[in-house]
Amino acid sequence: MEQKNLRKFEDMKRKTKNMINIDPLQTGGILTDKAHQVLNEWGDGYSVCDFCAGRLEEIKTPPIYDFVNEILPEFLDADVACITHGAREGKFMVMSALAKLGDFIIVDKNAHYTTYLAAERLGLRIKEVFSSCYPEFKINTQDYETAIKQIQKKEKGHISLLVLTYPDGNYGNLPDAKKLCKIAKKYKIPLMINGAYAVGRMPVKLNEIGADFIIASGHKSMASAGPVGIIGMKKKWEDIVLKKSKYFKNKDVEALGCTVRGVPIVTLMASFPYVAERVEQWKEQVEKARWFSEEMEKLGIHQLGEKPHNHDLMFFESEKLYEISQKQKQGGFFLYKELKKNNIWGIKPGLTKSFKLSTFSATKDELKKVLQVFSKIMKS
Amino acid sequence: MEQKNLRKFEDMKRKTKNMINIDPLQTGGILTDKAHQVLNEWGDGYSVCDFCAGRLEEIKTPPIYDFVNEILPEFLDADVACITHGAREGKFMVMSALAKLGDFIIVDKNAHYTTYLAAERLGLRIKEVFSSCYPEFKINTQDYETAIKQIQKKEKGHISLLVLTYPDGNYGNLPDAKKLCKIAKKYKIPLMINGAYAVGRMPVKLNEIGADFIIASGHKSMASAGPVGIIGMKKKWEDIVLKKSKYFKNKDVEALGCTVRGVPIVTLMASFPYVAERVEQWKEQVEKARWFSEEMEKLGIHQLGEKPHNHDLMFFESEKLYEISQKQKQGGFFLYKELKKNNIWGIKPGLTKSFKLSTFSATKDELKKVLQVFSKIMKS
Repeated sequence: MEQKNLRKFEDMKRKTKNMINIDPLQTGGILTDKAHQVLNEWGDGYSVCDFCAGRLEEIKTPPIYDFVNEILPEFLDADVACITHGAREGKFMVMSALAKLGDFIIVDKNAHYTTYLAAERLGLRIKEVFSSCYPEFKINTQDYETAIKQIQKKEKGHISLLVLTYPDGNYGNLPDAKKLCKIAKKYKIPLMINGAYAVGRMPVKLNEIGADFIIASGHKSMASAGPVGIIGMKKKWEDIVLKKSKYFKNKDVEALGCTVRGVPIVTLMASFPYVAERVEQWKEQVEKARWFSEEMEKLGIHQLGEKPHNHDLMFFESEKLYEISQKQKQGGFFLYKELKKNNIWGIKPGLTKSFKLSTFSATKDELKKVLQVFSKIMKS
Repeated sequence: MEQKNLRKFEDMKRKTKNMINIDPLQTGGILTDKAHQVLNEWGDGYSVCDFCAGRLEEIKTPPIYDFVNEILPEFLDADVACITHGAREGKFMVMSALAKLGDFIIVDKNAHYTTYLAAERLGLRIKEVFSSCYPEFKINTQDYETAIKQIQKKEKGHISLLVLTYPDGNYGNLPDAKKLCKIAKKYKIPLMINGAYAVGRMPVKLNEIGADFIIASGHKSMASAGPVGIIGMKKKWEDIVLKKSKYFKNKDVEALGCTVRGVPIVTLMASFPYVAERVEQWKEQVEKARWFSEEMEKLGIHQLGEKPHNHDLMFFESEKLYEISQKQKQGGFFLYKELKKNNIWGIKPGLTKSFKLSTFSATKDELKKVLQVFSKIMKS
């Protein structure tokens, strides 16, 4: 191969590294110093497998065994935990273990697109629970019962799983999971909570909620390199989701043996002491988000989704911003460019009328700067 | 949570980092300096998604688009390439896209355990092609035709895929893939080559072999952080393996949207210029392996698998080493401990009678040291 064509793969710099980050996808995944240190220490290929006796979750050096079997169950208030490649792969593992071709799953209309893809890959049928639509887009979890009854009466398929997105990635809404849990129990259908934007940001307790599964994302919300995730589950599901191979009796079928056989799991562990502390500061995070939302409203940029809001992920809309963009040379890209010029990262290029952001990693002073920029733009 | 219980997750050091490494799992996955640099640059969670417009393989900064769509197809001599979480996940993706519940796949008896697990997870039936057994354990690829005929005559199931392990992870044997390709074409059954121990070590050309799929592993053989892998395929499979969702038309069903949304893909790219060069040195690698094998034979430690050998991964056995271990206080662990004391890493603890190793990353001088230690042990 021509080496001159390959030079661009060396010294790849990340230009956004030191910017104020308000990208919902990124604010919970910024590494701690401890995680940065282990990146180089454990970066080599199969480094975590130095002392492996056959199963990732049983490796004692680095202390994956303790992390997965003691620390994570306590943190999630789950009976059993396992490692996955991320939230989507965790959802797929649970669906693959529980559902058969043609089965139904019931999902909220605010679900992440990967919930749909996981079901589609397995040939499952998807029944949607709609939201209250504009402007709050709230999911009333009572509506899952209606959906169950409809399937029982009309479509007559087997319902393998209820999935609740908690919170969703568009509006940052937190539906009533406990209420849904009662419905799940009444109809004896397992309930999976997709907590990709919850676990590692806010306290989430599986057994307290009463659900069967909780899905977490390391790179989304646990200050970890990507990709890595977690499933927390009730004991009764252990033999099903973590079932062993008929060919190799110590190998997990759903994990294809082992999942994250590399450095992301080590960053997840290295950041964990910090993450365990930061979830205790959730009240302050919500206060910061609400304050930011109120300040945006004052500028004429309106927050959709639950109000008052209960999460750092928020969706805003502004007809005026759109009108301003129409007068700009760069059109829809002007907002993205104006923010970038001011060292602010995270609004998708091209968006003006509506966009989402997260206040999780920025300090109040940084958010004040964000507000100043928006204020200046709104006056232009 | 009690912070004192979490201290062990900080400052985790890897003790084996600077040792002479002969672990087959690890010798091809040691990072380059360039890869180490990008680890910190791109370590944060979803960092690679800064400029994503919806699909990992289309991201232009960092230059994933060029890497996947131009560089990898050229390197693999494939029409199309895509990124996976690793070799096992790549095999699963292909099987999931091509096979239906109850279908047959035909695999060589030397296949990696994850080939079995991928098929098991999908409810496929596995037909095995046996090896020549002791001492060479060679796969005669002509035997795939016998297996096809047996299924057609007796079991009467649909055969979705032939899988060839090239080389296998126990003996490092390289079966005749081109011959198998002719059989695959004759019976119109797609052929997948598992090249987890080939791509990144030796030149492998998919179209030249004539197979349908080539599977690669970044952490096993491409100087990359784990986990990350590649599928190279013929154009005709693109719409099947990379089929788009009926719900979200730019999202890949088999990838659940995107696979390695994090730093392992960046290390794979950063190391690539080096990897592209090193495969050109394969002849020297084979010579080094053969020389090492001959020296071991002189000590009375016998190499199993193909002879003369064609790969750095080798399996050795020695009745005498076992006898010596019986006289040692540490029993079977003495070999592992003796090597470790001499700064040599990679033989599984407890093994003496038979073990595998790889000469890929060690220099000839380092291997001379390994031989000296074995020599000393054999005289004890």
